[in-house]
Amino acid sequence: MAITIYDVAEEANVSMATVSRVVNGNPNVKPETRKKVLAVIERLGYRPNAVARGLASKKTTTIGVIVPDASKTFYAELSRGIADIATMYEYNIILSNSDKRQDREVELLEDHLGKQVDGIIFMSDSITPQLREEMRRANVPIVLAGTLDAEKEFPTVNMEYEEAAYLATKKLIENGHSNLAFVSGPFTRDINRLCKKVGFEKAHEEAGFAVNPEFILETDNTYDDAYNHWCEMLERDNAPTAILVSNDELAVGILNAIRDNKFSVPDDFEIICFEHSLLARAVRPQLTSVVIPLYDLGAVSMRLLTKLMNKEEVEEDKVMLPYRVEWRASTKEKNPLA
Amino acid sequence: MAITIYDVAEEANVSMATVSRVVNGNPNVKPETRKKVLAVIERLGYRPNAVARGLASKKTTTIGVIVPDASKTFYAELSRGIADIATMYEYNIILSNSDKRQDREVELLEDHLGKQVDGIIFMSDSITPQLREEMRRANVPIVLAGTLDAEKEFPTVNMEYEEAAYLATKKLIENGHSNLAFVSGPFTRDINRLCKKVGFEKAHEEAGFAVNPEFILETDNTYDDAYNHWCEMLERDNAPTAILVSNDELAVGILNAIRDNKFSVPDDFEIICFEHSLLARAVRPQLTSVVIPLYDLGAVSMRLLTKLMNKEEVEEDKVMLPYRVEWRASTKEKNPLA
Repeated sequence: MAITIYDVAEEANVSMATVSRVVNGNPNVKPETRKKVLAVIERLGYRPNAVARGLASKKTTTIGVIVPDASKTFYAELSRGIADIATMYEYNIILSNSDKRQDREVELLEDHLGKQVDGIIFMSDSITPQLREEMRRANVPIVLAGTLDAEKEFPTVNMEYEEAAYLATKKLIENGHSNLAFVSGPFTRDINRLCKKVGFEKAHEEAGFAVNPEFILETDNTYDDAYNHWCEMLERDNAPTAILVSNDELAVGILNAIRDNKFSVPDDFEIICFEHSLLARAVRPQLTSVVIPLYDLGAVSMRLLTKLMNKEEVEEDKVMLPYRVEWRASTKEKNPLA
Repeated sequence: MAITIYDVAEEANVSMATVSRVVNGNPNVKPETRKKVLAVIERLGYRPNAVARGLASKKTTTIGVIVPDASKTFYAELSRGIADIATMYEYNIILSNSDKRQDREVELLEDHLGKQVDGIIFMSDSITPQLREEMRRANVPIVLAGTLDAEKEFPTVNMEYEEAAYLATKKLIENGHSNLAFVSGPFTRDINRLCKKVGFEKAHEEAGFAVNPEFILETDNTYDDAYNHWCEMLERDNAPTAILVSNDELAVGILNAIRDNKFSVPDDFEIICFEHSLLARAVRPQLTSVVIPLYDLGAVSMRLLTKLMNKEEVEEDKVMLPYRVEWRASTKEKNPLA
C-alpha cells in the first residue's frame, strides 16, 4: 500500500500542513521539525514528487476551486490546504468566489467545466437541486470540501460537526447551565442548521430539558451583528448563561458585548465556539473552541481529487477528519471532555 | 473621459468594494446603499458590462495572481479586490502562493507566462534582480500590488506608507513620548525597511532626538513572536512607552503582553499599528490604526491591468491610494492628525 502524507504526519507526530511545508520546501518550519519529517519521509519511502512525475501525462494541469468568499479566514485557510497539495502534485488552481449566490455557483461550475479543468473542489453553504443536477452532468471529478451533501452522493471531506456541537453543549450542561443559547451564522448554511443546531438540541433532549427557541439566534455571520444581538439579550431577565457559537468571529462579538456591559466570562457566561482562528487566541479571556481542521479539510480534499482524477482506487470518498477541543478560559473547567 | 469605478464610489460616498458588490450583484449590500449606487451609476453613465463586452475579442480570459500567502488576511483581502474586478471584466484567475521564496517567485512567473495568461498581478516582499530580469522579459503586462518597486520601473499600486508612519510617530511624540519603539515584520519586506522604518526615523529626526536602535524590533511577523518580544521588553527599566507596529497581528501580540503583565494601554503604553483588520476592532482596547486600503489596492491593480492588457491609455501607472487613520482607544487622544 502506498505511503500517504497522513502516514508521514502521524509517524512524525506533526500536522499535514507541516509535512506539506517540508515537501514544498517552505522555510517556515523549525529546523529540528524539518529534520524529523525528512527522516520519516525517507524511512517510510514517501515519494510525493515521484507521484507527480507519474501524473505527467495528464492533459492539462489545472483544477477549479469554487469558494463562497476566499477573503474570509475560514475559506482562506481551507484554500491554502488545497493550494499546497495542488503544488505538490503540480496542478494550477483557477479560483472563483461565488459570493454564496446560487445562480452564480451554477454559472461558475459551467464556466470551469467549459475551461476544461481536470477536476473541481467545491465549497458551498448548500447544494441546491439545480447545482446537484449540474454536478451530475460534469465529466470530471468534483470533491465537496467542508460542505454538506445531504444526499451523500458526491465525494466529501468534513468533520463531525453535530457530534462536536453535542459534546460541547453537554459539557456546558454538566457545568450547571440549564439556560443555553446557540448563536449561529445563517441557517441557509446546511452545516449550521442540520449539524450544529441538531447537536445542540440532542444534548438538551438527553438532559431532559427543552431548547428555548428564542435562544436559537441566527445572525448574518458578522462580528457586529453578534455584538448587537447579545447587547439586546443582556437586557432580558432570562438571558442564557452559556452559549454555543458557530464560529470565532461571532463568539468574539458576544464576548465583547458581555465585557463591554461589565459582565464576566466565564463567571457570568460560559462560551464555546467553533473554528479557533487567531481571533480566538487574541482576545481575553481566550475562547474555548472546537478546532475545525481547516487546512486539512482543504489538503485532504485536494489529495482525494488527485486520486479521482488519476483513476486511482479510493476506499472511502466520504471522509471525516478528526477534530479536537482547545480548552481555554471562556469556560470554567479546562478539563477535556470525558 | 470615461467614468470609472472611483468616480462612482466618490459620488455615492461609498467604498469601491461597495460599488463592485452592487455591479456584481452581490447581495451583501444594504438596499438603500444599492439604490444610491445604482442611481449614481445611471446618472454618471458608468458601464462596466459594456467594457467587458468590448473586451470579448481577447484571446484567453485568464490572468495570473502570484501572492506570498493567500491565507494571510492581508493578502486574502487584497486578492478579494483583484477577484471582484476580474469578475466584472470577465477574467478568470490562476492563483499561486510563492511562500516568499525568491526561487519560487521566478519559477511561478515563468510558469504563468508559459500558461499564456493575459497579464499578471504580482505581490512580493522585494523585487530581486533575478525577478526583475524575468519581469522585463515578460510579453504581457505585470502590475505590482502593495509591493515596492525600488527602481520605479513597473506599474504599481501602493499607499504612502512612509508618510503614514511619519505622521503616526509624530503624533506619539506630540503626546509626550520620547522613548518609542518600532515593531516590524521582517525587514526583507521592503515596505517595512524602506518605508515604515524610515517614516519612524524621520519623525525622530524632526523632533531632534535619536532612535534607539535596540527599540527597532524585527519579528517573524507572528502574534507569538511579538508577544514574547514584548514580554522581554517589559523586564527592562527603559522600556519604550509608545509603539508603532507594522501590522495588526503583531500589535495584538504586544497589547496582550502588556495587559497580561498588568500594565495599561493607553495609560502606560500607547500603540498605533498598520492594517485595521477585524482583529484591531475585536480586542480591548481597540487599536488606533493606519487603515491600509487592502481591497482597493487589489481592485485598482486589477483595473489598471485590464487597461494595460487592452492597450488603453493610462495616465499614471504608479498609483498611490489614499489612506486614513482610525482613532481608537490604544492612544490617549482620539483627535485626528492635524
